Amino acid sequence: MANSNVKEIEDLIKIISKLPGLGPKSAKRVVLKLINNRDELIRPLTNILAQVYKNVIRCNICGNLKSTNSNCTCSNSKYDQICVVENIADMWVIESTGVYKGNYHILGGTLPSFEGKNSGNGLLIESLVNRVKKNAVKEVILATSASIEGETTSHYIADSLKDTKAKITRLAKGVPVGGEIEYLDDGTLYSAFKNRGPAVND
Amino acid sequence: MANSNVKEIEDLIKIISKLPGLGPKSAKRVVLKLINNRDELIRPLTNILAQVYKNVIRCNICGNLKSTNSNCTCSNSKYDQICVVENIADMWVIESTGVYKGNYHILGGTLPSFEGKNSGNGLLIESLVNRVKKNAVKEVILATSASIEGETTSHYIADSLKDTKAKITRLAKGVPVGGEIEYLDDGTLYSAFKNRGPAVND
Repeated sequence: MANSNVKEIEDLIKIISKLPGLGPKSAKRVVLKLINNRDELIRPLTNILAQVYKNVIRCNICGNLKSTNSNCTCSNSKYDQICVVENIADMWVIESTGVYKGNYHILGGTLPSFEGKNSGNGLLIESLVNRVKKNAVKEVILATSASIEGETTSHYIADSLKDTKAKITRLAKGVPVGGEIEYLDDGTLYSAFKNRGPAVND
Repeated sequence: MANSNVKEIEDLIKIISKLPGLGPKSAKRVVLKLINNRDELIRPLTNILAQVYKNVIRCNICGNLKSTNSNCTCSNSKYDQICVVENIADMWVIESTGVYKGNYHILGGTLPSFEGKNSGNGLLIESLVNRVKKNAVKEVILATSASIEGETTSHYIADSLKDTKAKITRLAKGVPVGGEIEYLDDGTLYSAFKNRGPAVND
């Protein structure tokens, strides 16, 4: 016997279980919660989804999401630093730490590691160079992943920015906080040794 | 700095993080997934939510969800057994085990343990009595929780059904499979002893 003979509910469970972190079981719990709170949940969720679908676009300058109803914050902010990230999730994680308060540039992915350097690959790299020049940015912090693709992308961007006056920096590599030496890979250990500093910090 | 300066996205994160099993962090991942899959996810999800809001109602006979576009399955099925549960989630759990293949009656909650017996409390109890009589049901399986409220409800229903010809049964109480004796409460142990059976089953 199916879990529900109601097609609408089957369809809703199916689509909700496609969302990250939700399996068929938790999707069912979500659906029940929705159905038990029609006016507090289903109605506003339907409205806001329709609005997001209609109004939210990607800014073609900084790569962040923006509403068609307003200008992107990148268009009128003054800044000295830009932090370059692969995607919005990365930006949100960095923002939530509070370690960096400045502007972001969201590439929209990485360059494939095996391809030639001349392919922009749909990433907002040219736009980054323009932003850096136009705003006389002092520092570009490359916060792409420490994967092969992230490194390739980082090198390519550093190369693209060499004619600007910006200082190009890259996130430090080393032992993650809480990391046990025993379980670290060779590359991390190599970086951690190479970048070692004084044992007592100020 | 807020995680997003786009009001639509803030609103969407807020409402999604109200769903069960989703906190602010996982809600953000869901929102990103949605935005990155507008046509595959946002559009169909918006449509199906609107349909559920409009079409899905609770059957006032059996308490299950039904579509306004079709009759509830309870209206034209022949059956010998009805399994009485508190809510739809309980029904789905029982269904998913496959241990029982039959009809359900969803009360919509439990009676409060402290109140007098004469209150129906909005539960579909009268409707259950009518269903049992009308269909000459042979067995009513009371599958309410083993909590005080579940027991109160179960007793009240058994009492309401005493004039019908149905056999009234109740789920067995005992040691849950995988349960360690050391950690069981007195009530469970008492039931497990009282209902003990032959050690070798057929």
